[in-house]
Amino acid sequence: MAEFHSFQPPARLLLGPGPSPVPQRILDALARPTIGHLDPRFVAMMDETKALLRYAFRTDNALTLPVSAPGSAGMEAAFVNLIEPGDTVVVCQNGVFGGRMRENVVRVGATAVMVNDAFGTPVDLDKVESALRANPGAKALAFVHAETSTGVLSDAAALCALARAHGALSIVDSVTGLGGVSVEVDDWGADVIYSGSQKCLAAPPGLSPMSFGDAAVDVLKSRKTPVQSWFLDMNLIINYWQGSGARAYHHTAPINMLYALHEALVMLHEEGLEAAWARHRENHLRLVRGLDAIGLELLVEESARLPQLNAVSVPAGVDEAAVRRRLLEEHNIEIGAGLGELAGKIWRIGLMGAGSNPQNVDRVLGALGEILQRKAA
Amino acid sequence: MAEFHSFQPPARLLLGPGPSPVPQRILDALARPTIGHLDPRFVAMMDETKALLRYAFRTDNALTLPVSAPGSAGMEAAFVNLIEPGDTVVVCQNGVFGGRMRENVVRVGATAVMVNDAFGTPVDLDKVESALRANPGAKALAFVHAETSTGVLSDAAALCALARAHGALSIVDSVTGLGGVSVEVDDWGADVIYSGSQKCLAAPPGLSPMSFGDAAVDVLKSRKTPVQSWFLDMNLIINYWQGSGARAYHHTAPINMLYALHEALVMLHEEGLEAAWARHRENHLRLVRGLDAIGLELLVEESARLPQLNAVSVPAGVDEAAVRRRLLEEHNIEIGAGLGELAGKIWRIGLMGAGSNPQNVDRVLGALGEILQRKAA
Repeated sequence: MAEFHSFQPPARLLLGPGPSPVPQRILDALARPTIGHLDPRFVAMMDETKALLRYAFRTDNALTLPVSAPGSAGMEAAFVNLIEPGDTVVVCQNGVFGGRMRENVVRVGATAVMVNDAFGTPVDLDKVESALRANPGAKALAFVHAETSTGVLSDAAALCALARAHGALSIVDSVTGLGGVSVEVDDWGADVIYSGSQKCLAAPPGLSPMSFGDAAVDVLKSRKTPVQSWFLDMNLIINYWQGSGARAYHHTAPINMLYALHEALVMLHEEGLEAAWARHRENHLRLVRGLDAIGLELLVEESARLPQLNAVSVPAGVDEAAVRRRLLEEHNIEIGAGLGELAGKIWRIGLMGAGSNPQNVDRVLGALGEILQRKAA
Repeated sequence: MAEFHSFQPPARLLLGPGPSPVPQRILDALARPTIGHLDPRFVAMMDETKALLRYAFRTDNALTLPVSAPGSAGMEAAFVNLIEPGDTVVVCQNGVFGGRMRENVVRVGATAVMVNDAFGTPVDLDKVESALRANPGAKALAFVHAETSTGVLSDAAALCALARAHGALSIVDSVTGLGGVSVEVDDWGADVIYSGSQKCLAAPPGLSPMSFGDAAVDVLKSRKTPVQSWFLDMNLIINYWQGSGARAYHHTAPINMLYALHEALVMLHEEGLEAAWARHRENHLRLVRGLDAIGLELLVEESARLPQLNAVSVPAGVDEAAVRRRLLEEHNIEIGAGLGELAGKIWRIGLMGAGSNPQNVDRVLGALGEILQRKAA
């Protein structure tokens, strides 16, 4: 058998769609000695993590916690806990992740009514209202607040209000939103929201922070069928994450990853949410100015741009994969490719979490400019 | 809002049912800089991890990989990928985790035929054969090789052979087994097996190594219904973990946790599987001798004892929770409580992975002896 050695990752600057650069302080927290998932000291840290997540989500929701797996599992947890076979869900798709929502609805045995918008544009409120009106018994409206595949921000407040007006629960994907742009769970009246650890929170990938409002908890507790996933069944997970005194074992929590998420949230709290949003916005504007100077255009119209994820149109005649390869190999910078129908047409430049700073903006602009100029020369 | 600070875990000696003590070398690997899940250097590390898992599982199975969530998700992945609504599964229960298997079967819409044995005894082969004979169309036989809740080892080779003889797939839980006792996936002819990162592999909790044999892959590929979990759908996950050249994005892999698992497997490969098994056995025997000397007895008969998880009967008149609390508070040693019908009746002393060494055996024996003597005095 071959020889095996410790893995030494190269030094990359992560300016793609996530993971984002993880600060040394969070890596240090990650590497603290593992303790038990029922240790009283660990349980106290869990309680702090819930309080910090409520701060980040701007909510008082009791059921606010990280799911022990990446954002895709958070998405699945939202659907398997709230949707039952035979339900109808209005699903907005304006990027790849709306399609994944549909997959989740179908696999629960429910019907997905799709509201489609072009990749790169926000969810159209009029179309959503028509769909809700045409499907009066719809259990939920599901949409992506911050589309990681296109860099588009949709109007979560208005979409949650539409859902509420039509008696539907709102299911909000803010994997890329949380910590980078305004997320107002209580003001929006969002019923369920999920995010990811590895975007604007700047922790490694592997956890999915979630929050369930009272109406969602009522639906969860009055289900007619069991939640199809044992691992993601919130009725069981509550007994580990909530309650005073002893916590009931459900599954073994990912201890060290939770240290990292806790540290990331402590750092976000130190900076302040509004300051973090402003920082993401300023560095985004710096990037836009710089892209303009080297003749590159953004895919998304100005009013719907996510500051933390910038979809840049690939100029005609440019081999987008070759540019990304050079960025990685010659400059140690990772940016993202387009997904789905945008494959080959855009680059995705993430300025997320600790990655959002002026130095990184200048570094990626310099490298991109150099590569494109060399090609043109 | 309250003040929040970095979390500093106490220095615990983890001698419970897992997580086990994580060596500094693995914590160091965990904390290396995060890179992207599609980075070619990361993909090369994934390939090494698969090769190392094949070494640990003793298999040539192509579909051998870690699921991006704890062992409970590995269990769920086994059932949701192979079992369809209407199927019958013979499930052996001789501890808590057999009951969890039944939950998984039921939530897939299949029927679980239970074979029950007393907690603390191994799975009875005759009962299993009767159940398989009585259910000729059974799709699978599911059993726990190494019962974490009782410290019992069952005869995986014989159980897999019984399944095969009756045309059923074998689904093997070896969450606590892998790396601590002989696991022979190819020799057994096990069709699916799952484990956990935080037991005898000595990595932090959060990943579930799995292996699927050819027959299982055939079943997976010829399903009549979609896998009910999108996140755990192996038909999709294969496209990220397998194949030459570019890997298709499915979900964002838990990068740093995979660094840790890779390092843990490199260390296991350095020590050698047989040497690791022998070490677990020797330290177990040292513990048994020491327990005997302080008048404590093991729950499980000698032939079925797992060296890495020792179920110790709580003597009459002893408050088991108070003893565990003192071990934790006064000695910084964590041991486990009984689960299910063994709650209050046993302690679980884990000697797993890096935790299995003579110093730890002597330390827990000394502390236990001191606490019990003080109580008796």
